[in-house]
Amino acid sequence: MDTRSVTFLPAGVKVAVEPGIDLLTAAGKANIEIKAPCGGDGTCGKCAVIIKSGKAKARRESYLATRLAEKGLNLACQSLVEDEDLVVEIPKISAMGKHQVLVENVALGEGVSDALREYLLNVWQLKDLFKQKHEDPLHGYPLNPLCRWVQLTMPAASLQDNRDDLSRLVLSLRKETKCTDINIPLSLLRKLGDTIRVENFKISILLSEVGGKAEVIAIEPGHRHQPLYGIAVDIGTTTVVAYLLDLRKGTIVDTAGTHNRQARFGDDVISRIVYAVDEPDGMKDVHQSIIDTINTLIQDLLVKQRKINEADIRVMMTAGNTTMAHLFLGINPQYIRLEPYIPTANFFPVVKAQELGIRVHPDAPVFCFPAVASYVGGDIVSGTLFTAMGKADAQVSLLIDIGTNGEMVLGAGDWLVTCSCSAGPAFEGSGITFGMRAMHGAIEHMQINPETYEVSYATINNGRPLGICGTGLIDGLAKLRRTGIIDRAGKFQTHLPTPRMRIGEVGPEFVLVWAADTEIDRDIVISEADVKNLLRAKGAVFAGIRTLLNVVGFEFGSIETVYVAGGFGNYLNIPDAIAIGLLPDLPVEKYKFIGNSSAKGACMALLSAEAWAEAQDVAGKMTYIELSVGNMFMDEFISSLFIPHTDLTLFPNVDL
Amino acid sequence: MDTRSVTFLPAGVKVAVEPGIDLLTAAGKANIEIKAPCGGDGTCGKCAVIIKSGKAKARRESYLATRLAEKGLNLACQSLVEDEDLVVEIPKISAMGKHQVLVENVALGEGVSDALREYLLNVWQLKDLFKQKHEDPLHGYPLNPLCRWVQLTMPAASLQDNRDDLSRLVLSLRKETKCTDINIPLSLLRKLGDTIRVENFKISILLSEVGGKAEVIAIEPGHRHQPLYGIAVDIGTTTVVAYLLDLRKGTIVDTAGTHNRQARFGDDVISRIVYAVDEPDGMKDVHQSIIDTINTLIQDLLVKQRKINEADIRVMMTAGNTTMAHLFLGINPQYIRLEPYIPTANFFPVVKAQELGIRVHPDAPVFCFPAVASYVGGDIVSGTLFTAMGKADAQVSLLIDIGTNGEMVLGAGDWLVTCSCSAGPAFEGSGITFGMRAMHGAIEHMQINPETYEVSYATINNGRPLGICGTGLIDGLAKLRRTGIIDRAGKFQTHLPTPRMRIGEVGPEFVLVWAADTEIDRDIVISEADVKNLLRAKGAVFAGIRTLLNVVGFEFGSIETVYVAGGFGNYLNIPDAIAIGLLPDLPVEKYKFIGNSSAKGACMALLSAEAWAEAQDVAGKMTYIELSVGNMFMDEFISSLFIPHTDLTLFPNVDL
Ligand code: FES
Ligand SMILES: [Mg+2]
Ligand SMILES: [Mg+2]
Repeated sequence: MDTRSVTFLPAGVKVAVEPGIDLLTAAGKANIEIKAPCGGDGTCGKCAVIIKSGKAKARRESYLATRLAEKGLNLACQSLVEDEDLVVEIPKISAMGKHQVLVENVALGEGVSDALREYLLNVWQLKDLFKQKHEDPLHGYPLNPLCRWVQLTMPAASLQDNRDDLSRLVLSLRKETKCTDINIPLSLLRKLGDTIRVENFKISILLSEVGGKAEVIAIEPGHRHQPLYGIAVDIGTTTVVAYLLDLRKGTIVDTAGTHNRQARFGDDVISRIVYAVDEPDGMKDVHQSIIDTINTLIQDLLVKQRKINEADIRVMMTAGNTTMAHLFLGINPQYIRLEPYIPTANFFPVVKAQELGIRVHPDAPVFCFPAVASYVGGDIVSGTLFTAMGKADAQVSLLIDIGTNGEMVLGAGDWLVTCSCSAGPAFEGSGITFGMRAMHGAIEHMQINPETYEVSYATINNGRPLGICGTGLIDGLAKLRRTGIIDRAGKFQTHLPTPRMRIGEVGPEFVLVWAADTEIDRDIVISEADVKNLLRAKGAVFAGIRTLLNVVGFEFGSIETVYVAGGFGNYLNIPDAIAIGLLPDLPVEKYKFIGNSSAKGACMALLSAEAWAEAQDVAGKMTYIELSVGNMFMDEFISSLFIPHTDLTLFPNVDL
Repeated sequence: MDTRSVTFLPAGVKVAVEPGIDLLTAAGKANIEIKAPCGGDGTCGKCAVIIKSGKAKARRESYLATRLAEKGLNLACQSLVEDEDLVVEIPKISAMGKHQVLVENVALGEGVSDALREYLLNVWQLKDLFKQKHEDPLHGYPLNPLCRWVQLTMPAASLQDNRDDLSRLVLSLRKETKCTDINIPLSLLRKLGDTIRVENFKISILLSEVGGKAEVIAIEPGHRHQPLYGIAVDIGTTTVVAYLLDLRKGTIVDTAGTHNRQARFGDDVISRIVYAVDEPDGMKDVHQSIIDTINTLIQDLLVKQRKINEADIRVMMTAGNTTMAHLFLGINPQYIRLEPYIPTANFFPVVKAQELGIRVHPDAPVFCFPAVASYVGGDIVSGTLFTAMGKADAQVSLLIDIGTNGEMVLGAGDWLVTCSCSAGPAFEGSGITFGMRAMHGAIEHMQINPETYEVSYATINNGRPLGICGTGLIDGLAKLRRTGIIDRAGKFQTHLPTPRMRIGEVGPEFVLVWAADTEIDRDIVISEADVKNLLRAKGAVFAGIRTLLNVVGFEFGSIETVYVAGGFGNYLNIPDAIAIGLLPDLPVEKYKFIGNSSAKGACMALLSAEAWAEAQDVAGKMTYIELSVGNMFMDEFISSLFIPHTDLTLFPNVDL
């Protein structure tokens, strides 16, 4: 078939595509990622591009497309390649930031704000984080990796001892490991006779022993010193991070992170499920995207560590939310999204790397952290493992992971209750007019003069402003309220004597930065609609916490520790978050940032069968509270849509 | 590459082959089977063909080839296709008889001897045999096939009961089956969400539940009546027989049998192991041959039963000797042959049909009967299961299966001892100048006039004589002795006044049929060397029996039943066999022919998980006696090289 070329600027990357393909897909083929929170539906407007040369065809007319066209912009997802070759410029605001490139370029040197540095270290450089804090990746568990070499010296066969090779091996292995349920695949059996005779019945067995079952993965002659590596992956909806672990030493060798390439099918899990279910080949595409993402990370790690061989990576552990786990394994995710929100599985089978196309040793077993429910996934179980909340001696603790959903776990030892509230992606910058992730150029702090309403701000990396990140939004909300620009219900005081307060296209808005001072040549504003979104987001999280406490009959005061997980958590300003009523009014000392606890838990489980067993136990004993059953959550939610709350006695220390 | 054509007569089949290929291989490609007991080594002389047109190149010179050349014959295995197209005639004596074709052609009607009829019925028509004898294929075990549909009606998912689909299924299945260890493959999990909702949480599960572990093989929506078939296969070194079973009814639907196509690599297991180990791609060829053989049988069965679908055959059970099991699974058989004779495995993993290329449902589990040692295989275990010798209330019994090896089992209930003696293939007609299998034209009975030494004989199917089959050889040996043509040590009395007694090329021989009366235009003789071979064969079997008895301190008198297994066994003349000292001198009533007990046991195990469990138990409790350790067997063997035996008190009722 005839193809057309599409050249993407500023990167200058050219791809050949067939006519009829849209520019969002074409960019994907060029490995260039364009924002597409709505999954290419033409409704979010974030995928705007400038067609510099050539003519594309509009998929259909829409109000949004028409408005953008006035500004010389086209929706990438709605523009189809037709007869002509195209040159397409991707404005900064539409491009996905290249986190990793950023880390490497700025080398965490000058000009990086503390928040960004910590965020990046946390997400991309867990190794260093562990080092800095003298954290042991085993976190107290014994080194007993999910895959290990066992060396056997068996009695040689003779006419007097003429047991078959397999029995000889199994008996010897049982003595060594106490495991009775041992499985050896046919492929290894086929050549076993030769293998065990090369060095006269001395062999090394690569074993994965889990839950009383031992799977033999490889058999080699003799007792050589074999390298042995594993990969632990946190599969986030947005970001995927991989850790290369030396299983013999129990150490983190290196780490790498990148965007989840599924982003081109939508920002949140729902868009991805819709794409997987509704599009032709959708499931295949969404599944393959995450596999490709992980393979890229593995290649990154191998390039960094030139002496390590792909085939020496013998096992993999993944932790991700329930949807990510389904998509990673290629399991139909459809019913996660539909009431009554049922995942196909919470406990996942162990599969071989080659079944998924993961580029490590083809026989490497791939483990997935168990989930609890459709919206409380393996990442939360992994985080809970990391906090040790499920251990017998644990005190009452709360774990919060705020992302698109706010997931939380409350409990101590034997009892753990958990829920998920659809906070929406506001704190991740999505659904907010100028929201963005915590990257170069994001506003993360601001001051508003209570008399002149003039704004001063600080951006990440001191870049010219591109938008507002999560911290900035929380800070902004607190400042808007403190200066009386909004009332406790989030309503804008439109009569204020400042040009920054104005009525925009969709209602009242407050200008934080004038276009001339930005990188994007547009006024950066917070609108009343944005504030409502933020209130709903913070209200949902707080209502979730209250509901969990109500269910078990506890008060805030019973909570000894609040673990704040996730990339977002780590640069959250706790007093701000309490001030707007996102987090409970507890002493700041009770809050602990634990960073990417999902990744840390995955490392622990890969390095220690005992930790992995604990993870199963934790997942099994978590009681999931479905917030849509009954009125409790809804009542709490409605009471939480104020700053900080309808019931001010819950926030005795807040004065806004 | 250029090819030449080779046309095989009398079939008239033409194949294109590359120059350099030998005629034995070329015939294999044409699906024409030529005898090749030495496996194409050029030493057995059984593959003689006549090159009618064109010129072939001799692989190398040999005494045998030169002698045959004088008669216008060429060794197929040593004749290489060179520049010319060839026309090659395969004399009857070199062609493998087409058992099955024979059965169908003669339709078991007129002119078929009783022995042949029973043999054929037994080997090819087990169904009818079972019917005739009112035998239940379950043989007293409950119908509980290794693969069955379980119908589940699960509570529908709701916000109140929001367990994941997998847990819901597993819990429901546990209730139904009491099985706690349930495995569901990823491929089924991927679409489980849809499957269970098609008929609102009513599903049918295809389950294989063995040894406390349940493997889910398929999941279908609703409670339809699904057809369900299994295949039980007796993988003999020479003959392979398959039974199509209806697993819902517990009945045999049909049966088919054919030669093991591995025959072109040699008649016995040793030649096949040598071929597999020494030839390039040898293992692949030998493995593929048995897979092809079985696939052909399955196609035969499906053609016979037009309404049955390949994909409705959901499980397969095989029983074969240890070498056959290794070759079937593609496991290196090398160490079976080398002292100390160690198989890679006695208990084999369950594999999926698609892993082996067996043409039934690709996910069908394939079971192999466990073996006991290198030369006591799954066929013997299966036969032992059939005899019920391992059951608590069993009396002391002896099971004998005489083929190339003589395998035997002695025991009652808790104890079972077993051994294998290399009887050699003499009773199967191999290694005997005019030996042949029990087919059309084989001499099976004879009378020798004690004064004139004239011979009258009966052949199978009254055909013109082609050779002598096993029964004929045993009968012949008894008659040669009774008439004083040979002495008790098997020495020929060369002075006897008859032209039938003469000195042939390799020593004394006795002419049974003059060339003019044969189908092969050669005198059919028994030579002194043949007699020595027969004595060694019968001596080995008898010495094996004696050794087993010695090991446990029993006498012949303790044996309540002797089970005689195998196609050979069924038309064995017991008094003859006792007279030559092959079988112990026990009342004829104690002997029971059990036919192809390996196949019958395989059917039982496939139809009943209880029988399969018993088979594991039997294999586990059999004590293998290695005859090459110590002198006991050798001493017994030497004493047995007389007719009937050195120690005549062992044969009080024999007067030869
Ligand atoms: S001599 Fe040709 S196969 Fe034996
Ligand atoms: Mg996460
Ligand atoms: Mg047999």
